[in-house]
Amino acid sequence: MSDMKLVVVGAAGRMGQALVRTIATIPGATVSAAIERQGSPHIGKDIGQLAGVGPIGVLIGDDPLVAFAKADGVLDFTSPAATVEFAGYAAQARIIHVIGTTGCSAEDDTAIAAAARHATIVKSGNMSLGVNLLAVLVEQAAKALPPEDFDIEILEMHHRNKVDAPSGTALLLGEAAAAGRSIALAENSVRTRDGHTGARKAQAIGFATLRGGSVVGEHSVFLAGPGERIALSHHAEDRTIFARGAVKAALWAHGRKPGLYSMRDVLGLGQGA
Amino acid sequence: MSDMKLVVVGAAGRMGQALVRTIATIPGATVSAAIERQGSPHIGKDIGQLAGVGPIGVLIGDDPLVAFAKADGVLDFTSPAATVEFAGYAAQARIIHVIGTTGCSAEDDTAIAAAARHATIVKSGNMSLGVNLLAVLVEQAAKALPPEDFDIEILEMHHRNKVDAPSGTALLLGEAAAAGRSIALAENSVRTRDGHTGARKAQAIGFATLRGGSVVGEHSVFLAGPGERIALSHHAEDRTIFARGAVKAALWAHGRKPGLYSMRDVLGLGQGA
Amino acid sequence: MSDMKLVVVGAAGRMGQALVRTIATIPGATVSAAIERQGSPHIGKDIGQLAGVGPIGVLIGDDPLVAFAKADGVLDFTSPAATVEFAGYAAQARIIHVIGTTGCSAEDDTAIAAAARHATIVKSGNMSLGVNLLAVLVEQAAKALPPEDFDIEILEMHHRNKVDAPSGTALLLGEAAAAGRSIALAENSVRTRDGHTGARKAQAIGFATLRGGSVVGEHSVFLAGPGERIALSHHAEDRTIFARGAVKAALWAHGRKPGLYSMRDVLGLGQGA
Amino acid sequence: MSDMKLVVVGAAGRMGQALVRTIATIPGATVSAAIERQGSPHIGKDIGQLAGVGPIGVLIGDDPLVAFAKADGVLDFTSPAATVEFAGYAAQARIIHVIGTTGCSAEDDTAIAAAARHATIVKSGNMSLGVNLLAVLVEQAAKALPPEDFDIEILEMHHRNKVDAPSGTALLLGEAAAAGRSIALAENSVRTRDGHTGARKAQAIGFATLRGGSVVGEHSVFLAGPGERIALSHHAEDRTIFARGAVKAALWAHGRKPGLYSMRDVLGLGQGA
Repeated sequence: MSDMKLVVVGAAGRMGQALVRTIATIPGATVSAAIERQGSPHIGKDIGQLAGVGPIGVLIGDDPLVAFAKADGVLDFTSPAATVEFAGYAAQARIIHVIGTTGCSAEDDTAIAAAARHATIVKSGNMSLGVNLLAVLVEQAAKALPPEDFDIEILEMHHRNKVDAPSGTALLLGEAAAAGRSIALAENSVRTRDGHTGARKAQAIGFATLRGGSVVGEHSVFLAGPGERIALSHHAEDRTIFARGAVKAALWAHGRKPGLYSMRDVLGLGQGA
Repeated sequence: MSDMKLVVVGAAGRMGQALVRTIATIPGATVSAAIERQGSPHIGKDIGQLAGVGPIGVLIGDDPLVAFAKADGVLDFTSPAATVEFAGYAAQARIIHVIGTTGCSAEDDTAIAAAARHATIVKSGNMSLGVNLLAVLVEQAAKALPPEDFDIEILEMHHRNKVDAPSGTALLLGEAAAAGRSIALAENSVRTRDGHTGARKAQAIGFATLRGGSVVGEHSVFLAGPGERIALSHHAEDRTIFARGAVKAALWAHGRKPGLYSMRDVLGLGQGA
Repeated sequence: MSDMKLVVVGAAGRMGQALVRTIATIPGATVSAAIERQGSPHIGKDIGQLAGVGPIGVLIGDDPLVAFAKADGVLDFTSPAATVEFAGYAAQARIIHVIGTTGCSAEDDTAIAAAARHATIVKSGNMSLGVNLLAVLVEQAAKALPPEDFDIEILEMHHRNKVDAPSGTALLLGEAAAAGRSIALAENSVRTRDGHTGARKAQAIGFATLRGGSVVGEHSVFLAGPGERIALSHHAEDRTIFARGAVKAALWAHGRKPGLYSMRDVLGLGQGA
Repeated sequence: MSDMKLVVVGAAGRMGQALVRTIATIPGATVSAAIERQGSPHIGKDIGQLAGVGPIGVLIGDDPLVAFAKADGVLDFTSPAATVEFAGYAAQARIIHVIGTTGCSAEDDTAIAAAARHATIVKSGNMSLGVNLLAVLVEQAAKALPPEDFDIEILEMHHRNKVDAPSGTALLLGEAAAAGRSIALAENSVRTRDGHTGARKAQAIGFATLRGGSVVGEHSVFLAGPGERIALSHHAEDRTIFARGAVKAALWAHGRKPGLYSMRDVLGLGQGA
């Protein structure tokens, strides 16, 4: 089978370049086009050269329609407005659209869902295979273990320059735990503990945050019960895992019928709670 | 609802006493009888006193038939021969039989399956809720993550007096991982590494063993891929978790129709691979 | 050499009984007397029986002076007022006094120091060998690694019923880290993180707290730098470690000249910062 | 104070380039010359360009004597023969020589020690600050905790392509533990466990190995005793930590009198046991 032809949009950005480098390491996929916004100073440059893997003969352009028409799929970590536009073009071209863009509004999501009638879309707020798998396992564990016996706690550690807490991924894992328990995270999360806290409340989902050094991202979910506990952990070594997950999603979607899919589908783990 | 009436067989043994102590801490269950083999020096003693929770008015007897007739279920960590016999009595009495006995032969298992036409049997080689849940999660993770990218390794630590390696639970987790990958554990397990080992083989499932101090039991399964890894761990604080799991299994089985169930069913996680 | 003869004060309490059970397992030490306050309902009972190790022929009494006169040392996890009094008696008897009592005032400490001119006193707020060793290692690590590069974070986990945070041991480890850096903990500790925190401050010592299940006590100190990190952890399996540490301290002190010693001395690790 | 002027030898190699990139990120140091062997195809190239940090105006040359004469120090991860030669030149120039070269013979070490009469030499088989600190802490912990009570185990994990086990760093940590216990590692190490092993031997130092994914390097030393355990761990995120340690060693050595120093000296932790 010939390689899957992928368009990288936002190609000159940090994530776009990471996608180009990652495609170069994964068999079965190739960069067929690289798109930047009109007026970008990078138009006309070889995207391989820019991304540090040497020239690959693909020059950065600014016409997505032409690029999509000749491709099998598009990888997109841009902005909500651009993503909605690309989703329309992908639907027209009837190709695959992998969306790692964050911050989409309800309106954006409606437009993307509409495009998914003709495009095969995979969308996730976190494209790492491991984090998505962990969320599924956390939901199942939270559901299986009796809430009166097992307490759920979530720990994350990131580098010293991260400016918010808990991390988005920690909250995503908290949502998975809450879904497994059929409770609302907002009403049960405990985000700080200091001084006289009193005993832990049943159903609480606790968060704890560590910051330091150059840690890329560590997440652990504990289910602590009488005499035993389970820890489910994810460890990120570098940021290429998001690019890898996107390419894997595109390969998985290749040949599937139009629709809106999640990374859970890519992992073969269904729709969750 | 009145408490579920449970018979403890092998009541004077280490596990029998642990069951009696555990039932005392779990709402909804009560010890209705305690059985030992004929001729045991403990016949006639109060089982609560023997187990260290103070007298409970239940004297150790040697007639299971009478005891089963007045009970809702039986908790059994005895020997294969005794268990097969008890399964027959439980079928006659149409009650629940929770079996934590290990070392059953294929023939024993056939007899137990036959009894399960009339008895509601829950049987597992490891009654801990946490270990059984972990095995399910390991199987799913092994199945979901691509084998060419994610390597599976299993680590266990136990106290200094344990005389074999790897632990039975580590092997159980290895079987779960192999099932998820649809491969045979025996042909893919790597149980030692020393000196020039060469690079890791694809599909290998590696085991590593630590021994020291008074560690009750720690197990971790790693799925290590490009740029990220997942760790799924179980930590046992004390040996009461097996007794707790048995009582939980009995409470879960109460009112269910006859059949042979596993701890996966108790956890609501179906039949696995 | 004959066994070291130890008096247990506060013998009928939870910690007193634990000391009696622990002495029974450690070669070279024996219970020579057990003391309770006047009027205790336990006076006259066999302390071995009370503690669950069977009768040992030592009846609980209320006269420390007589008991101390015939002993080599005393183990004391009582109250500040009682401890000051016992320190005076130990000085008179010129024996060893191991003090695990917490909450002593500056005045109490002065009285204890005065007694140490004639008694050989070992005093610590946490008698566990492991925790005391960890504190020494943390101080050294904090001193050795450049503060502009390595960030210090402290994580603790305890059972669901613990009512305060961070744990006393976490704060003790924080003090050790601050001592290694020659900074004040109070001015540099960060005890909660939630929402927009901004980047981590240099010199900060962060604390994070987990609560759940029946966890006896876990503590980890992270030193996270550019491209690498160190974790120094202590894991408590049960509460007997404090009793064990006290007996070990007594055996270490046997034959040493009067003075006020710490668990660091028992570990052979000097006076610290 | 003006920046410390550093010569990088073996500059075009993987480690040489890493040194150049690292110096660019650390205040107080600058690349004053880059040396390769005569006939290298890289002679005359700008070392900054080659290393990927953009041109820095330093062209790769092949005359160490001239370069050393104008420098404050030299960073050397080359081969034993080259290192012995460079040590002689560094002694002539009376500058600092940081040696990360491995595989030196006893004869090489004698020559290096001789050069240290005039050069200020820092030499270590592992230049990471964290690993060297961990080794010191392990030695102290092994010494402080009673061997009859605390068992020592060493765990390491590396990527799937590592061809030997245990890692050199795991063995280095084992040597540190053995030194703390005043025993020989060779006679006490247990490097595999499989099947019926029998109970753990007192004084044994156990090793366990995990392999998988792209793990850069994880090492943990456990001291497991009755009711408690300590874990001392190092986690490497990337291979730049060796380059960083070398630059830190050079900065530390700047202004010190000639002699042969180790990374323990750089850490301010003296000579060990």
